Amino acid sequence: MTSLILTFQRCFKMKDPNSSAPPRSMDSAEYGRRLRVLVAALRRRGLDGAVITEDVSRLYYTGFASTAGTLLVDVAEGPVFVVDFRYILMARKAMPFAKCVLQKSGDPSQVARHVRGWRKAGYEARQSVSAYEELRKRLDKVEVWEAVDDAIASQRAVKSAAEQKALRRAIAANDHLYARVLGQLSPGMTEWDVRGLFRRGADEVGQGEAFATIVCAGANGAECHHEPDLTPIPARGPVLMDFGVILDHYCSDMTRCVCFGRPTALYRKIHGIVLEANRRAIAKLRPGMTGEEVDAIARRHIAKAGYGDAFGHSLGHSVGMEIHEGPNFSPRESRVIKPGMVVTVEPGIYLPGRLGVRIEDVVLVTRTGCECLSRSPRDLVVL
Amino acid sequence: MTSLILTFQRCFKMKDPNSSAPPRSMDSAEYGRRLRVLVAALRRRGLDGAVITEDVSRLYYTGFASTAGTLLVDVAEGPVFVVDFRYILMARKAMPFAKCVLQKSGDPSQVARHVRGWRKAGYEARQSVSAYEELRKRLDKVEVWEAVDDAIASQRAVKSAAEQKALRRAIAANDHLYARVLGQLSPGMTEWDVRGLFRRGADEVGQGEAFATIVCAGANGAECHHEPDLTPIPARGPVLMDFGVILDHYCSDMTRCVCFGRPTALYRKIHGIVLEANRRAIAKLRPGMTGEEVDAIARRHIAKAGYGDAFGHSLGHSVGMEIHEGPNFSPRESRVIKPGMVVTVEPGIYLPGRLGVRIEDVVLVTRTGCECLSRSPRDLVVL
Repeated sequence: MTSLILTFQRCFKMKDPNSSAPPRSMDSAEYGRRLRVLVAALRRRGLDGAVITEDVSRLYYTGFASTAGTLLVDVAEGPVFVVDFRYILMARKAMPFAKCVLQKSGDPSQVARHVRGWRKAGYEARQSVSAYEELRKRLDKVEVWEAVDDAIASQRAVKSAAEQKALRRAIAANDHLYARVLGQLSPGMTEWDVRGLFRRGADEVGQGEAFATIVCAGANGAECHHEPDLTPIPARGPVLMDFGVILDHYCSDMTRCVCFGRPTALYRKIHGIVLEANRRAIAKLRPGMTGEEVDAIARRHIAKAGYGDAFGHSLGHSVGMEIHEGPNFSPRESRVIKPGMVVTVEPGIYLPGRLGVRIEDVVLVTRTGCECLSRSPRDLVVL
Repeated sequence: MTSLILTFQRCFKMKDPNSSAPPRSMDSAEYGRRLRVLVAALRRRGLDGAVITEDVSRLYYTGFASTAGTLLVDVAEGPVFVVDFRYILMARKAMPFAKCVLQKSGDPSQVARHVRGWRKAGYEARQSVSAYEELRKRLDKVEVWEAVDDAIASQRAVKSAAEQKALRRAIAANDHLYARVLGQLSPGMTEWDVRGLFRRGADEVGQGEAFATIVCAGANGAECHHEPDLTPIPARGPVLMDFGVILDHYCSDMTRCVCFGRPTALYRKIHGIVLEANRRAIAKLRPGMTGEEVDAIARRHIAKAGYGDAFGHSLGHSVGMEIHEGPNFSPRESRVIKPGMVVTVEPGIYLPGRLGVRIEDVVLVTRTGCECLSRSPRDLVVL
């Protein structure tokens, strides 16, 4: 067992990732490019500007993380970042490329003051109904409001070179974390203990979890999004782990199954089917396919094996600054897959009360197919 | 110094909080009561039911944590929880008091199927514009939609006995964490290192941070929501720490300032003004006052001392399942403070490039005034 894990760690040849460092943003040029792409999209739609209100969108376009603020993107005048007292000093330091203005606590009129002559404006339909209503009241000179979520999502879906690099690092950190936790796992620990190993580790190899780690001992694996509880890891039986590190604002995501003691014949069979579904999807996906077509590769394989009803979720979702982005690999995804997209491939089979298997990798869509960025072995690890 | 900290820990007389246990929900009766209050509010407004879509609202009314699902509260028929494949098994286990139905992946028609004969329906304006538009399309028989956020917020603002108990535990865990970190602090550690102590500790005394810990070394304290970076804790100078543990779904929040070596005269003066503002607000707040009136107690004191412009944020916010709830103690808060509300009191003075002081406690509003739930000493700790 020990030797298996050593080999496993050696095969990654990973340096210890920078531990315990604050998240770094990219250089200003990256944000300048992103803003130019947005401005071009707004211009194509005949919009005078857009009001960017969501935390993650502001972060994407500025590199500045905050829980408040409004980014006004004026097609003619460029970006203005309006933020309150708590953030203004930091914002000015972080954004040499944008005008940063102070919004007095609770007084949103500053936003209106910097919107000059907009008749047609873009907004984010991701924002709350109440915030949007407030915005429309404030900017009452705007005659036409148009949701620009699709433009932002399309831009974010195709990752820039710098983003691909960031995602590779986050995914390598996640591989590293997995290898480390694998060396610490033992029967009798609770699911909650194992979740603690991932959480603490995610803080060391990155800046924390990208989502709440899922750990399922034995038959709990059949609960797809099982919340780790006090169930002990069995002396003989499987463990499913779904976990991701966030590093420098980019997420990783991976699911692996291991087994203590000899797996049952059924478990081996199901694991084999899921693994083959994962491999086929990765081998066959090509840019130009729709998300639905990619999903179907894995779904067909699982259905043919007789477990179609036991695969109740989508095959995958895009990953970037958020753990769930679009497009998806799903039976309802008509959007076309393009080079530069980074998406999970995570088929699963769940038999309530008996077992659950999911094997999840992150792939980068290339010009001819895809590159699997997750490097941890997918074969069933028997401990 | 060591003796000071020992005394400090002794004076809390705290047992080691349950470490590393998964979050517990309350007993079913609590959720039954909460749902009945909601139903009564809907009935008063003449609504046939409400569609509860936000994660935290579903959690509040059911005790079931998930990142998906819709809670339909039919005034006549009771609650129906509609959720996808990933959560359905867990939901059925967790909610004996609600009917749980499976929503097939990506098919929201199940929600419509369980809404029978609603003409007037409540919705959450906290949800995104796009989700709300989708909901209206799905439930196209509903003639009148009414936002019920205020009803939910008013209910959540006054904490039940069980909630007060949960908040006391979360706040005690936070006090405990502070005492522990104080014993580990030393000059030369970076802000990021200290943030790591809080984060790891928050995982042990609770289930993690209620928000991203703020650590400000020296003059960084003037950046109110400073993001911890690699600035070292000075051999002589102040450190501001703002941190909160989440325990069993309830948040805590506290800010304290400590000083390595002898503080400057200016620092002592400012700390004294802020501390007095905190004390006065806590001593004078009474149910029946508006949030604005409570805010004014502290603000007046700081303004009289000549630092009115240096206190740019509100005096406080309610705390519960979310770290920021309403009502607030703020110059724009007209809502009336009631017994059972749990609110922060956190005056501050920020002098850019020089220093920043904030002292934050959480108080429970009682029938005659308030009880300060935060027990950590507020006097300037010199280490």
